[in-house]
Amino acid sequence: MSYQLHYWPGIQGRGEFVRLALEAAGADYVDVARGEGRGQGVPAMTRFFEDESIARPPFACPFLVDGKKVIAQSAAILLYLGPRLGLAGKSEADQLWTHQIQLTIADLVSEAHDTHHPVGAGLYYEDQKKEALRRAGEFRKERIPKFLRWFEAILERNPRNAKRKDPHLVGAKLSYADLSLFQAVEGLYYAFPKATKRAMKKAPLVGALHDGVARHRRIAAYLASERRIPFNEDGIFRRYPELDG
Amino acid sequence: MSYQLHYWPGIQGRGEFVRLALEAAGADYVDVARGEGRGQGVPAMTRFFEDESIARPPFACPFLVDGKKVIAQSAAILLYLGPRLGLAGKSEADQLWTHQIQLTIADLVSEAHDTHHPVGAGLYYEDQKKEALRRAGEFRKERIPKFLRWFEAILERNPRNAKRKDPHLVGAKLSYADLSLFQAVEGLYYAFPKATKRAMKKAPLVGALHDGVARHRRIAAYLASERRIPFNEDGIFRRYPELDG
Repeated sequence: MSYQLHYWPGIQGRGEFVRLALEAAGADYVDVARGEGRGQGVPAMTRFFEDESIARPPFACPFLVDGKKVIAQSAAILLYLGPRLGLAGKSEADQLWTHQIQLTIADLVSEAHDTHHPVGAGLYYEDQKKEALRRAGEFRKERIPKFLRWFEAILERNPRNAKRKDPHLVGAKLSYADLSLFQAVEGLYYAFPKATKRAMKKAPLVGALHDGVARHRRIAAYLASERRIPFNEDGIFRRYPELDG
Repeated sequence: MSYQLHYWPGIQGRGEFVRLALEAAGADYVDVARGEGRGQGVPAMTRFFEDESIARPPFACPFLVDGKKVIAQSAAILLYLGPRLGLAGKSEADQLWTHQIQLTIADLVSEAHDTHHPVGAGLYYEDQKKEALRRAGEFRKERIPKFLRWFEAILERNPRNAKRKDPHLVGAKLSYADLSLFQAVEGLYYAFPKATKRAMKKAPLVGALHDGVARHRRIAAYLASERRIPFNEDGIFRRYPELDG
């Protein structure tokens, strides 16, 4: 039976981290809310928030349905999918480290979101533009370099990256954390092209990882397909030139 | 060998979620940065950020050291400790559900933090008070009730809570998610006493869970001890009366 991914159509958002894992593994999945067939579309997703017969309902999307299981929180979904899709190591230590990296990427992603919505997700960007300018300044100057320094350091310290070619975050194989870091870097380049270009100069292994994921056969095909939603100003990473520096 | 917990002394912060699990289980642990003995204190913690021989370094604290293992991200630490401390179910499904709830509590905690630091963690509260007033309004009116509704719903739908006495989030036994929800509710009561009291009227099972955890023998002893740092205005949950409504 195929996996069901439930996420808002029209944006990459947090659903994209799950989508990249499913795509990289060539997994059979249905992107439910984007579908137009029977039992698809946004109502097929939102019913999970309303149906009181679901014992373990999601708080928000994305969520994954696998048979009778409903799993929300992108990091928890990837924790579940990782070993099943061959995108996480076999040992507990490797799985936990992959997950720890994923949670740190999720923190970066949340902070990227908050640059354009510092005062509240329920308000328009235009109503918090002044605050966004202040918050984005700190994010560009302090946070992007700090996160990239850490990713660079852990890539350097992974003994399997000694040759510095096609580096990976955990061991010698592609993991969902690699895919997620690729996506985070893509998002940063989209939202903060100038600041990211500057910061990435000091993170050559992160750059090599990013390029390696982009060349991955299935990922390259996915990125070139219509299944990949372009970045846009409804998503987490938004290009507001005034927020870049 | 005892666990080493590393977290900033002086605040509960995100370290408290780990501390509560260790305390509830009666685990042998050292609160490293708070200690004054040899190999303790803040420098014993910060060296983990600087020591390049650590292959899998933390990005931030809290982190746990268990022998040679160093594990950061509070949710990942609890994922690791849960089965070891008897604070998570045995099945993969139960462990994943416990973790999913934990990640949702972590989202609530991050949002609570951002009420007083919407513009940036690097600025003083006084420099972002106007923005904090706006953000706290949305948090009080929309987010606290929404999160509590979800916790109440999952407590209602847990068949093991049919008697509605001493409810638990997962199955019939205390889990780290129960401890974390207790802590989140404590924090909300501290930071937003009026708004939380109002919202909790519609969440009786959350209230019963909170009270049940507070009565837990080891937790009650811990809360009464000096090991429990009081809430204060350097932590995540801060009492700024102007932000309550």
